[in-house]
Amino acid sequence: MEKGNSIYQGKAKELYLTDQPEVLWVEYLDQATALNGVKKDKVVGKGQMNNQITSKIFEILADQGIESHFIEKISNTEQLIKAVGIVPLEVVVRNFAAGSFSKRLNVEEGVKLPFPIVEFYYKDDALDDPFINDMHVKVLDIASDEEVKEIKELALKVNEELKKLFASVNIKLIDFKIEVGRDAQGNILLADEISPDTCRLWDMDTNDHLDKDIYRRDLGDLIPVYEEVLNRLNTL
Amino acid sequence: MEKGNSIYQGKAKELYLTDQPEVLWVEYLDQATALNGVKKDKVVGKGQMNNQITSKIFEILADQGIESHFIEKISNTEQLIKAVGIVPLEVVVRNFAAGSFSKRLNVEEGVKLPFPIVEFYYKDDALDDPFINDMHVKVLDIASDEEVKEIKELALKVNEELKKLFASVNIKLIDFKIEVGRDAQGNILLADEISPDTCRLWDMDTNDHLDKDIYRRDLGDLIPVYEEVLNRLNTL
Ligand SMILES: Nc1ncnc2c1ncn2[C@@H]1O[C@H](COP(=O)(O)OP(=O)(O)OP(=O)(O)O)[C@@H](O)[C@H]1O
Ligand SMILES: Nc1ncnc2c1ncn2[C@@H]1O[C@H](COP(=O)(O)OP(=O)(O)OP(=O)(O)O)[C@@H](O)[C@H]1O
Ligand SMILES: [Mg+2]
Ligand SMILES: [Mg+2]
Repeated sequence: MEKGNSIYQGKAKELYLTDQPEVLWVEYLDQATALNGVKKDKVVGKGQMNNQITSKIFEILADQGIESHFIEKISNTEQLIKAVGIVPLEVVVRNFAAGSFSKRLNVEEGVKLPFPIVEFYYKDDALDDPFINDMHVKVLDIASDEEVKEIKELALKVNEELKKLFASVNIKLIDFKIEVGRDAQGNILLADEISPDTCRLWDMDTNDHLDKDIYRRDLGDLIPVYEEVLNRLNTL
Repeated sequence: MEKGNSIYQGKAKELYLTDQPEVLWVEYLDQATALNGVKKDKVVGKGQMNNQITSKIFEILADQGIESHFIEKISNTEQLIKAVGIVPLEVVVRNFAAGSFSKRLNVEEGVKLPFPIVEFYYKDDALDDPFINDMHVKVLDIASDEEVKEIKELALKVNEELKKLFASVNIKLIDFKIEVGRDAQGNILLADEISPDTCRLWDMDTNDHLDKDIYRRDLGDLIPVYEEVLNRLNTL
């Protein structure tokens, strides 16, 4: 496989073409951002942490029957992935109240929800990723009704597997965000990353944050925390 | 019917008990508010306009088979209504982009949507009526899945009748808000009011605002505009 031109320089990853049109080369960057990029810092070592964590998680999900865009980890900071047409949604699943849910609905962080809920945010930086409902998804032509149903089911299935996976390393899965895309056949495929950048992870005993809230809320050094998550996952 | 104690002094209406527990007495007030009450003014004549407009609309809806809490108009500013337990939702139906929809999703006001959409806002002044999705409705125990389905269907049926009704007096129904409640038997019933306070109404020829946006946006005098709507409805 040969690395081609860079096609997207994101906040956390850079995407490159390869000599195969259906395969992309992704490099995880040493950069942390929050507040839609308003807060931004170089964080040496973050790229390799997130690449290793995401790779591990996608491998375990595949073992559990959940396919993703992940093909293989090719270096400490790089993966090969299947190219998809990203559906412009941030699909959030919540098991416990936290973040914007807590703020908007005045529910204390850490309160267990009676059942997991799914939220859609329209992935559009200029609009600041607004929260939308199912009818907006259709009216904005983001996805069909059938795809909405499939995306929700996938999100909830991923949630069940992630809850188990993290529980086995003494971590509570508070909430997380996934992205999905359409592959060459038009099938919905889990894409992007699943890492402490995109999940809220609390230690089961101490409720310590093991995720990007460390950075968002200036609670300390991000690297030792991400390393802790990686080390726990590496026991699996 | 005897008027009893005041039980709720709202921003636009005051509710009184009657000698029948299942009946309330409502008085439409001469007050306009916007921005969740931050902007507030006395507007002489508004109470009787909205009482007459709402009464007329609920009568026409009843003729079309859509029941509401409306029993009868008993004076220029007063109605008798069935008491219900209000479901804490502002149920919004949109036919054209406007207001917060336009702002949040960057769609120009007046753009026709490919189909009507329904939005739920959690009726909670302290939280500023946050926009929520179907799963929040359930997780916050606001309404059951079956009720959510019924409320959406009711909202869309009301929309079809209101579109026809307003079109017949040369008015375009841009969007509107309804509230529903549970009657003594637990059945969902259309409640509150349907007036230029709760609808966006544009003249079909000129696109002039015939609704509370006149007040919200300081476009002029509210009374002649509400009177215009009432006069047109009175031709029906
Ligand atoms: N399999 C894939 N095929 C194509 N694009 C992908 C795939 N997986 C993820 N992407 C996209 O690649 C980009 C990854 O970069 P990064 O996560 O740094 O983006 P970002 O700065 O968060 O910006 P964005 O707002 O677009 O997510 C994202 O736009 C993501 O949607
Ligand atoms: N049939 C009904 N039975 C009981 N309450 C009703 C009924 N219809 C409407 N209401 C409630 O009566 C109040 C009407 O007053 P008004 O419209 O002035 O309220 P408001 O200032 O808008 O406040 P709110 O935020 O509660 O709507 C509202 O709270 C409304 O939900
Ligand atoms: Mg990203
Ligand atoms: Mg009201």
